[in-house]
Amino acid sequence: MSGNTFGTLFAVTNFGESHGPAIGCVIDGCPPGMALAETDIQPDLDRRRPGTSRYVTQRQEADRVEILSGVYEGQTTGTPIALLIRNTDQRSKDYAEIAQTFRPGHADYTYLQKYGVRDPRGGGRASARLTAPMVAAGAVAKKWLAQKYGMVFRGCMQQIGDIAIPFESWEHVGHNPFFAPVADVSQLESYMDSLRKAGDSCGARIRVMASNVPVGLGEPLFDRLDADIAWAMMGINAVKGVEIGAGFASVAQRGTTHGDSPTPRGFQTNNAGGVLGGISTGQDLEVSIAVKPTSSILSPRETINLQGEPTQVVTKGRHDPCVGIRATPIAEAMLALVVIEHALRQRAQNADVVSPVKAIPGSVR
Amino acid sequence: MSGNTFGTLFAVTNFGESHGPAIGCVIDGCPPGMALAETDIQPDLDRRRPGTSRYVTQRQEADRVEILSGVYEGQTTGTPIALLIRNTDQRSKDYAEIAQTFRPGHADYTYLQKYGVRDPRGGGRASARLTAPMVAAGAVAKKWLAQKYGMVFRGCMQQIGDIAIPFESWEHVGHNPFFAPVADVSQLESYMDSLRKAGDSCGARIRVMASNVPVGLGEPLFDRLDADIAWAMMGINAVKGVEIGAGFASVAQRGTTHGDSPTPRGFQTNNAGGVLGGISTGQDLEVSIAVKPTSSILSPRETINLQGEPTQVVTKGRHDPCVGIRATPIAEAMLALVVIEHALRQRAQNADVVSPVKAIPGSVR
Amino acid sequence: MSGNTFGTLFAVTNFGESHGPAIGCVIDGCPPGMALAETDIQPDLDRRRPGTSRYVTQRQEADRVEILSGVYEGQTTGTPIALLIRNTDQRSKDYAEIAQTFRPGHADYTYLQKYGVRDPRGGGRASARLTAPMVAAGAVAKKWLAQKYGMVFRGCMQQIGDIAIPFESWEHVGHNPFFAPVADVSQLESYMDSLRKAGDSCGARIRVMASNVPVGLGEPLFDRLDADIAWAMMGINAVKGVEIGAGFASVAQRGTTHGDSPTPRGFQTNNAGGVLGGISTGQDLEVSIAVKPTSSILSPRETINLQGEPTQVVTKGRHDPCVGIRATPIAEAMLALVVIEHALRQRAQNADVVSPVKAIPGSVR
Amino acid sequence: MSGNTFGTLFAVTNFGESHGPAIGCVIDGCPPGMALAETDIQPDLDRRRPGTSRYVTQRQEADRVEILSGVYEGQTTGTPIALLIRNTDQRSKDYAEIAQTFRPGHADYTYLQKYGVRDPRGGGRASARLTAPMVAAGAVAKKWLAQKYGMVFRGCMQQIGDIAIPFESWEHVGHNPFFAPVADVSQLESYMDSLRKAGDSCGARIRVMASNVPVGLGEPLFDRLDADIAWAMMGINAVKGVEIGAGFASVAQRGTTHGDSPTPRGFQTNNAGGVLGGISTGQDLEVSIAVKPTSSILSPRETINLQGEPTQVVTKGRHDPCVGIRATPIAEAMLALVVIEHALRQRAQNADVVSPVKAIPGSVR
Repeated sequence: MSGNTFGTLFAVTNFGESHGPAIGCVIDGCPPGMALAETDIQPDLDRRRPGTSRYVTQRQEADRVEILSGVYEGQTTGTPIALLIRNTDQRSKDYAEIAQTFRPGHADYTYLQKYGVRDPRGGGRASARLTAPMVAAGAVAKKWLAQKYGMVFRGCMQQIGDIAIPFESWEHVGHNPFFAPVADVSQLESYMDSLRKAGDSCGARIRVMASNVPVGLGEPLFDRLDADIAWAMMGINAVKGVEIGAGFASVAQRGTTHGDSPTPRGFQTNNAGGVLGGISTGQDLEVSIAVKPTSSILSPRETINLQGEPTQVVTKGRHDPCVGIRATPIAEAMLALVVIEHALRQRAQNADVVSPVKAIPGSVR
Repeated sequence: MSGNTFGTLFAVTNFGESHGPAIGCVIDGCPPGMALAETDIQPDLDRRRPGTSRYVTQRQEADRVEILSGVYEGQTTGTPIALLIRNTDQRSKDYAEIAQTFRPGHADYTYLQKYGVRDPRGGGRASARLTAPMVAAGAVAKKWLAQKYGMVFRGCMQQIGDIAIPFESWEHVGHNPFFAPVADVSQLESYMDSLRKAGDSCGARIRVMASNVPVGLGEPLFDRLDADIAWAMMGINAVKGVEIGAGFASVAQRGTTHGDSPTPRGFQTNNAGGVLGGISTGQDLEVSIAVKPTSSILSPRETINLQGEPTQVVTKGRHDPCVGIRATPIAEAMLALVVIEHALRQRAQNADVVSPVKAIPGSVR
Repeated sequence: MSGNTFGTLFAVTNFGESHGPAIGCVIDGCPPGMALAETDIQPDLDRRRPGTSRYVTQRQEADRVEILSGVYEGQTTGTPIALLIRNTDQRSKDYAEIAQTFRPGHADYTYLQKYGVRDPRGGGRASARLTAPMVAAGAVAKKWLAQKYGMVFRGCMQQIGDIAIPFESWEHVGHNPFFAPVADVSQLESYMDSLRKAGDSCGARIRVMASNVPVGLGEPLFDRLDADIAWAMMGINAVKGVEIGAGFASVAQRGTTHGDSPTPRGFQTNNAGGVLGGISTGQDLEVSIAVKPTSSILSPRETINLQGEPTQVVTKGRHDPCVGIRATPIAEAMLALVVIEHALRQRAQNADVVSPVKAIPGSVR
Repeated sequence: MSGNTFGTLFAVTNFGESHGPAIGCVIDGCPPGMALAETDIQPDLDRRRPGTSRYVTQRQEADRVEILSGVYEGQTTGTPIALLIRNTDQRSKDYAEIAQTFRPGHADYTYLQKYGVRDPRGGGRASARLTAPMVAAGAVAKKWLAQKYGMVFRGCMQQIGDIAIPFESWEHVGHNPFFAPVADVSQLESYMDSLRKAGDSCGARIRVMASNVPVGLGEPLFDRLDADIAWAMMGINAVKGVEIGAGFASVAQRGTTHGDSPTPRGFQTNNAGGVLGGISTGQDLEVSIAVKPTSSILSPRETINLQGEPTQVVTKGRHDPCVGIRATPIAEAMLALVVIEHALRQRAQNADVVSPVKAIPGSVR
C-alpha cells in the first residue's frame, strides 16, 4: 500500500527516478510455465520510448530491459520477475535553475511539502519516465492474457488539443507518430508544429480497449473492474478524467436507451463499456481518458520561488509538447495489468463455478 | 482485497444485501479518543435514505444505525467500530419474475456468470442500498477530519438528464430534494414528473469537493490521491465517469492556461482540482462524476430469459427515476473515506517532515 | 492491515468487545455455491464456549450465531458472510476496581499507552472471547476444505502445567473437558482442582494438525505456509511459542536424521511437519503451541495503580484456570483459516500447472 | 500478498535466485530525510555473507550492494529504495545431478509440484541466499529506528547441535565465527570440525532481541507485534520454532510466577518478552528461534528420482554445516523490519494520543 506497488495477486512494484542510475520493477505472482524473454517486452517499450519522432521529447533512451530473475531456461518460474532499465541520457544540469522555483502544473511543490526533500532532475519520481516499467510489466500481462484467453489490447488517439480524430481503422494506429486511427495525419502534424513554435503544449483524449475479456472478472463492492480501471488510468501521469463505456454521455441518456439489451446473438449495444455491477460482461472493455497539456513548456509562466517571491519560470530541457501522444501504450499496459489481476482473483474464489446458464455470444467464460 | 473492504489504514468492510436481514460495515483503524454516537452518523444516513420525496424510491427504510463495538463511554477506543442497519421494508415477492430474466443495465447476468448463483431480491449485493453503510462510515471520517483539519465536504447536482444546473450557492443544496445549488427547482420538478409518467429514467452529473485539505496527502506512483478518488467514485453504483479539476476540458486546454500559477497570495486557478503528481496541493479537491440513468424502469425492455430466449422485461417495484439524486451524500462520504486514509498514511511515513519552505496561502500543512 | 482482518482472499474481519453488545466477524471471499447454515457453525462454537465444565470459566454465554448476509436459499453467494453473536452474560461491575490498576500479564497497560483509552470490562478487545468469531469463521473454512479436499483438522492437549499427556487416540479428545487424547483424565482433574483451590493458574501445550492437505500450498518468501501458521497461532491470546514439525527438537538433530526421505510409498518421517520451503508437502501439517498461564487469578499480585503507586490486585470475576484448555478448537480454526487462504491463493497463480512428476503417496494435488 | 513482499507501510519486495544474475529488493515507505549510503548497509551484509570462516559455506560472494533509487544527494527521498546485489560466484554445474532427484529436507519437491518448474541451481528461489536483501533492508530499518528511538538490535547463538552456550556477554558475539556470547569457542570449533568430517550437519537455537522499544507498538487482533515477529522468524529459511519471552517454558509456569509485575521502578521480570496483548510493553523484545540442521550434506541419503524410483543423493557443492550460524544477523534484520512497520503504523492511527498515565520506567513512549 506504500504507493509504488500495483496489484495484489499480479503485483508490480515500481522503482527509480528520471535521472537516477536505473528504473525498473518487480512482478510478483506471474503464473509459471510461460515462455518469456526480453524480446517479448521490448516492442512495447519501443512504442513508448522517447526520441522516436519530432513530436515527442528528444531525450535519447534505448530503454533496454534486462530480466534479472524469475525466468529459468526461458520459462517463468512463478517467482518474482525483476526488470531493470538503466538510464543513459540524463542531463541533470538542465534542472539547476528549476530547483529554485515551483513550475505550474508540476509536482514540485507537493513533493517538497510532503517529503521535505525532492529530486528535481527531470521531475525525479514524478516523471512520466516511470511509466516505462509499467509498459514492460504490461507486456508480460498481455502475453499471458493472449495465450490464456486470446485477449487483445488496443489504444488510439481520439483528440489532440482542439482536433477531434475520427475512428477510421485500427490499421492506421501503428503507422503514424500520434497513434491516430486515421490514414492522413497531416493536420495533426501541422497542429503540433505550430504548437512547438508557440512554445506551448496541448492535451489529448485517448481510447483504450480490451477484446475477448471473459465474463465474470471484477469484484463487488469496491474492487470493481471499472473502479480498478479508473484507479489505474488516473494513476498515469497527467490524466484528469476517466470514462467507462458511455461515460459522461450517460448523463443525458435515458434508461430506455442506455441499458444494453441482451439478445440471443449478443448485446445490442455497449454503453456499459463491458462492465455491469463492477463485473465484466464479456463485451469489449471500453475506456477513454483525458490527458492534460504538458506542464513543461518554453513559454514563460508566473510562479514563486522557494522563498515565496513572485518570479517567472521557463522549462527548457527536452519535453513532449503533448504528453498524451505516448500515453497510448501506457494506457494499454495499465488496462492489461488490471485485467490480469482480476483474472487471477476470479479463479481464486470461483474456479469451481459452473454457470447455470449459457454465455451470451461475445461473452466467453 | 476480496472486494468488500475500502481502505487499508481506515478500512471499512461492508456486508449485506438489499433484502437480507441487515446491512452494515466494520470500520477498522479509526483513531481513538473521538466522541462518537449514533447521532453523529444518522444525519448523513437521513440525507441518503429512500422515501423522502416523490422523486426518489418509495421504499420506506428508517436506516437506523446501531454501534455494536469500538466505542466505550462515548469515545472511540481505536478498535473496530461495527455499524448495523436492519432492513425493514423488503418486498421480495416483487422479484420473482425478475429472477427469470436479465434486466438490461443490471448486474443480473454478470453475478450469475461469476458466482453461479445470485440473490435477485432488489439487486441483492449489487443494490445501491449497500452505499448506506459507506455513508455511515463516511460520517465518522468526516467528523475526525473536521476536528483535526477543519475539513468540509460538500456535494451538489450539476446536471439532471438534459438540464444543466448553474451554481448559485451551497446554501440551496439542503433545501430541495435534488441537492441542487439553485433557489428555484421547479424546472427540475416538472422534468422528473414527466420522466416518471414516461416510465423512464435519466442520468446525472454530481460535483463533490473538499475544503481545508492539508498539502501532502497522496502517494506516488499508484495510490495517488486522485487515483484513489477515481477508484472510490467509480465504485459507486451507476457511475460511468470521473473527473478531477478541469477533467475532460483539459484535453482542449493549452499548457499556458492549464497550469495553475502559484503566487504569494495563493494559486491563481485550480485546474488541477487540488492534486499535482498525485499529492494534494492544499487547494480544494474538486471532483465531478457521471451517473448513468437508472436501469430499473417501467418501460418494457428487450432482453433474454435464463434459457437464452428473447423476451421483454418491465421492472416494477420501487425505484429511483434518477439514481444520481441520492448520489450526492454518497460521493461526499466516499471522498471523505479516501482523504482520511491518506491523512493517516501521510503521518505514518512523514510525521517528522519539516518543510524547508512556507506553505502557499490556502494550502495548510 | 489495521490489525483486525485475518487473511486476504478469505478475509475475516473481527469486531467486538468482551462486554459490549455483540461480537462477530465478516468473511469476505468465501467461494459460492456451498450449503451453509448456522447449524454448520454452532458445533465448533459449542466446543469453545465457556461454562461447559468446572475447569473453565463459569460465564454463561450461549454463543448463538446469526448469519446476516452472504447466504441465499441456504447457499453461499460469494459475497460477504456477516456473523453476529450477541453478548448476554456481562457483569461489568466486576471490573470497576480493576480499571484502577494494571494486572500483571494483562494488556491493561499496553492498551492504555497505545490508545490513551481502554475498555476495562472483561479485558475489552483483548479478551479471549474474541476468538469465538474466529472459531465460527473457521467452521466455514473447514466445511469447504472438507468438501473440496477431504481435509480434516484435529487438535488435542499435550501438556497441562507440569503434566505431560501421552497420545493414546483421537477418539478420547471429545470425551473429556481437557481435549486430552487419553481415556483416563482423573490426574488432570485433581491437578486442576488443586490449582483452583490455590487461586492459581497454569499453562498448556496444544497440538493441532491437518490431514489431506494438498501439496503446493504456501508462498515463498514471506507468506510461507509455516510462517502464516506461526502468525495465526501467535495471534491467539496467551500463546508464547509455536513449533512446526520437529520444532525446537530440530536444534539437536543431525541433518542425516532430520530430513524426511521420500520413498515410492511416501515420506519416511515428518520432521518437516508438512512444510518444506514454505510450501506444503502433502503430509499432515503438524503444529504445537505454548499457552501461558491465565493472568486473571485470585492470588494477590504486586502491581501499580494508574498513579504509578505500588499496590496489589486480585482478579475476581469468572476466569479459566488454564486458558489453554479452550484453545484447542481455536487453534484448529486458525489453522483452517490459514489453509483456505493458501488454497485459494494457489489456484489464483497456479491453476494451470500440470506437474511433470507423480505425487508422492500421501501427497495429493 | 503474492509472497515476496514483507511489510505494508515499510514494504520490502525481494527478488532473485541463488544462481541468477542478481538478487535484491525494493524498500517502499522509508521515511524521507535520513542520510543513507551503501556504507550504512554493507557492514550487516558482511556479517551475513558466506566464505568468512571455515565453519560456513566457501562460496565467495562479495555481496556488494548498489543503491539504484530513492536516495538523492545522500538523503532518502521517501520514494522506493531499490538495492541490487549481483551474484558473482555461481557454479551451476554442481546442480545437474541434483535436478534429477528430490533432496530430503529441501524444497525441490514442493516447488516442482507447486509451479511445475523449478530452478535447481543452488536451491533457486528457496536458497538462504535470498536473506541477503533482507539483511540489507534491515540495515536501513535499524538506522532509522536507532536515530528515532535509540533502538538497538542484537542476536547471539544459544545452542549449536547438542551444545548449549551460556550467555557471558554481548561483547564476545562479534569476535568469533559463531556469534556466540562466550569468550572461549574452542568446544564449538571442535564440534563443527567433527561434524564436517562426518559429512553431517546440525541445528541451532538463536536469541534475538531489541532494546529501547517504545510502548504501544502492535495491533490487536491479528497483526500483533508478537504474531508478526513469529511470522517474520518462521519466514527465515530452516526455522522450525519461535518463542517470545518465556516461550515453551511458560507451559509449566504458574500464573503467580509468569505475570511480570509492574513496579514504580519498572517491571520485575520479562516473561512476556516485551509484548502483552500483542502490543509492546517497552521492555526488551526477547525472541528465540530453532533452526533445523542444513539439508545439504555429503552423507548419502535415501530418496526418489523424478521417475519416482528409489535412489540415493549426496549434496556436493558448498554448504553451511550449520545454517543457523549465519542466521543471527538475518534474525536481527527481520526483527527490525517488523518493528519499523509497527512504528509507522502506530503513528498513523495514534499520533495524537496523549497517555493519561506515566510510562513505567524502562518503557518509553
